[in-house]
Amino acid sequence: MFESLKLAHKIGKAEFEAEEPLLRGRLIDAQFDLLESGDFPVIVLLSGMDALGRSAAAKQLLSWMDPRHVRPYAEIRPSEEERDRPRMWRFWRALPAKGRVGIFLNSWYDGPSRDYFLGRIGHDEFRARIDEIRHFEQLLAQEGALFLKAFFFLPKKRSLKEIKKLKKAGAAAWKLSEEEAELSKAFAKRYDDAIGLVEEVVGATSTAYAPWIPLASADPRYRDLTLGRTLAEAIRERLDEPAPRIARSGTSTTVTGDGPNILDSLDLGLSLARDDYRSRLKAAQRRLTALTLGRKFERRALVAVFEGNDAAGKGGGIRRAVQALDPRLSRVIPIAAPSDEEKAQPYLWRFWRHLPRRGQVTIFDRSWYGRVLVERVEGFAAEHDWMRAYDEIRAFETELAEAGTIVVKFWLAIDKTEQLRRFKEREKVGYKRYKITEEDWRNRKKWDAYKQAVHDMVDRTGTAAARWTLVEANDKYFARVKVLETLADRLEAELG
Amino acid sequence: MFESLKLAHKIGKAEFEAEEPLLRGRLIDAQFDLLESGDFPVIVLLSGMDALGRSAAAKQLLSWMDPRHVRPYAEIRPSEEERDRPRMWRFWRALPAKGRVGIFLNSWYDGPSRDYFLGRIGHDEFRARIDEIRHFEQLLAQEGALFLKAFFFLPKKRSLKEIKKLKKAGAAAWKLSEEEAELSKAFAKRYDDAIGLVEEVVGATSTAYAPWIPLASADPRYRDLTLGRTLAEAIRERLDEPAPRIARSGTSTTVTGDGPNILDSLDLGLSLARDDYRSRLKAAQRRLTALTLGRKFERRALVAVFEGNDAAGKGGGIRRAVQALDPRLSRVIPIAAPSDEEKAQPYLWRFWRHLPRRGQVTIFDRSWYGRVLVERVEGFAAEHDWMRAYDEIRAFETELAEAGTIVVKFWLAIDKTEQLRRFKEREKVGYKRYKITEEDWRNRKKWDAYKQAVHDMVDRTGTAAARWTLVEANDKYFARVKVLETLADRLEAELG
Repeated sequence: MFESLKLAHKIGKAEFEAEEPLLRGRLIDAQFDLLESGDFPVIVLLSGMDALGRSAAAKQLLSWMDPRHVRPYAEIRPSEEERDRPRMWRFWRALPAKGRVGIFLNSWYDGPSRDYFLGRIGHDEFRARIDEIRHFEQLLAQEGALFLKAFFFLPKKRSLKEIKKLKKAGAAAWKLSEEEAELSKAFAKRYDDAIGLVEEVVGATSTAYAPWIPLASADPRYRDLTLGRTLAEAIRERLDEPAPRIARSGTSTTVTGDGPNILDSLDLGLSLARDDYRSRLKAAQRRLTALTLGRKFERRALVAVFEGNDAAGKGGGIRRAVQALDPRLSRVIPIAAPSDEEKAQPYLWRFWRHLPRRGQVTIFDRSWYGRVLVERVEGFAAEHDWMRAYDEIRAFETELAEAGTIVVKFWLAIDKTEQLRRFKEREKVGYKRYKITEEDWRNRKKWDAYKQAVHDMVDRTGTAAARWTLVEANDKYFARVKVLETLADRLEAELG
Repeated sequence: MFESLKLAHKIGKAEFEAEEPLLRGRLIDAQFDLLESGDFPVIVLLSGMDALGRSAAAKQLLSWMDPRHVRPYAEIRPSEEERDRPRMWRFWRALPAKGRVGIFLNSWYDGPSRDYFLGRIGHDEFRARIDEIRHFEQLLAQEGALFLKAFFFLPKKRSLKEIKKLKKAGAAAWKLSEEEAELSKAFAKRYDDAIGLVEEVVGATSTAYAPWIPLASADPRYRDLTLGRTLAEAIRERLDEPAPRIARSGTSTTVTGDGPNILDSLDLGLSLARDDYRSRLKAAQRRLTALTLGRKFERRALVAVFEGNDAAGKGGGIRRAVQALDPRLSRVIPIAAPSDEEKAQPYLWRFWRHLPRRGQVTIFDRSWYGRVLVERVEGFAAEHDWMRAYDEIRAFETELAEAGTIVVKFWLAIDKTEQLRRFKEREKVGYKRYKITEEDWRNRKKWDAYKQAVHDMVDRTGTAAARWTLVEANDKYFARVKVLETLADRLEAELG
């Protein structure tokens, strides 16, 4: 790999000066057509061994394009809020909206490469994190993102020279974080090892939808012109021709609907007497309070997902959970129609943005499962989109779990007769009247389709990291106690 | 003050239990009507001397209402990102959208009270911060926010008792930050001083639009029922009857348009030769780079505002500034039509959200001055709204300056002939074609109205904290050099 990059790649001053204004015109044109279309985001990722070159190239791109619609991002100083959440949160947060360009300096490739190269993590962990990156990029590509990943290459001798520059540059140089500088030095000193690492990373993350572009970066004119040309062409091409459909990875097979439904295995006759209910609810709430306020929880976080039939009692369950939580450390996020800022981002973005920090709790009232439930049943999402959602959700929840977030998911199940009874009751009772809408009645007509969707959802997204708890909810007392006890049990098990 | 609070305020168990379900119904009803109307946000602020009582009351409200549409907020652990920005940023960030309820525990009253009571700031500084709060609340009220500020009162003996409880409560108690606990103790021990402080704060911040409700908090049943009733009534009342117009504070007098216009004092014939331009621009860029990367800037931040006639060269100025800035520490925010999330918040919210952290730069391409320019001229904002904007903007920029943010504001001025020339040129040149729209031609017809608006803006919002720089922009070279040199000069002066 990279053999060709060792050849001289140069562009003379005259050629550069002749080409630059033309290229700038093409870039600006492409950028404004992109902005006007609002069709897809562009993710320019500059990585590789030339830290100073990366920054200089980012600057050059910014000065050629209209910088008002380009967002540069570098992990120069990850904040506490970022460190307190799953690794990829900071990048989700920085994603450009559709129609815009994000320039990422190293970014998600930085952590795994550094940690592995400096011996902080073993090879298994390193591979797992590279897989995480591949998954992230695949998700973005499937949501339509256009990738331009440039790998900056420097020959051995030049690499050592750059390090010396780095030392001398002082205050006028772009700021490298200490860690960035550390890695640059290590790369230059152990150049051959670095090349080995780079080959592995580039090999594992060169995909059809997000390929690497190796870039000889020793000559700034060659480097910047090549980068600019490639970007202008890539945007123009995608504007002219929509993104090719990415073949699904093989894990999700077609949903058939044959065989027994998991919901039929529930005994909806389960119930609790009022006295039992009161004492058990209180006991579970007390445990939940103590657990979430304990020392051990300070390094963890809790995400609780409430899904269920309409009128199954999600609101009541959530209220009992909230009663046990410190209001200052917990939030309830009701998921409704996405805002326009959310619509301009990948589907999961609207959930990523609400993830709790360490020591905190987020309760989702409906969630990312909307895609494989209502959006599937009502046909709001194409089959291709909701089918890939199973994979994406598993990966998402695994990332949460790996960051120490405890994920608890509830499906509250009632039967059709009980639902009808509750709908009618709600229409009568004053302060409940807002809870029942035309849509609820419409959904009810598709009972069987929802049932199949729930079955598939539980089947495909129950993982060790995030199991489903099916809650028999015909009896509210039973359901609430099961919810609260499950929360307390899971926390207890996780916090040890 | 508070004499009446020392009387016994009690509600018996029977009365409470009879009242509670009715109150809950009224609260939920009010809450859902509010949500449906989407008309205004509700800000419940719980403050006062009873830290445990405040948390308990917040919990009770949350359990009565639908917690999915209520957002509790407490400054339990301000994050680095919050500490790195102006004081009020964290509260702006937590504001409920229209139709929702935010419950704030102590929040903006916390800092000034604590700092003053514990002797960390003097009385002048304390008063200044109370003024800041009054201004903040006035702004929110003028944007339609409904306030319920409850002041929790405990008699002396009870206060000391609560402190002991605090010590014993251990892991099961709501978490108080160390600072909160420290203040609670200090309050109980120096009770009479505390009452004095409280009288001053309550006196200074009891306004028509955000009055304090003194609340005897010794009896939880009385405390919570009173709070719940007041909230339900307040929401209901406001839903039935729109907010009364708040009389403007006297500082902004009616705009007359008489007298000479400040723009006429500019010599638009100023120009620079190409060679001069190149060398001076480069020199200024170098200074700007060095200054923003220097040690001293790490504790500061820069906000640069670009306003100007259409086609005056804002984009070109911004690009030259961006060239001098580390792309990893700077962002350009183009201000266009607000998103729906922004529309559900006060006008200034959309700018607060983009403020730079320490050590970083935000360039606004158009800004909060839209309200007193295009919105005034086109009649998008009512006179009442753009008139109060002058005050709000001054306060906003003063807050920025006090937090160490350097605010530099440019008005790029060209004359009518030069504008016409540029419009025509832009329609011809390829990559500039997107910059000229129907709207630009329409705005041009209102040249004189804009001129008056600019005059008033410069007149009313040029403060020591944030002066306007008027840039003679008929000659692009001259304009860009003036912009860059001004930025460098201001930074140099500020960084000493």
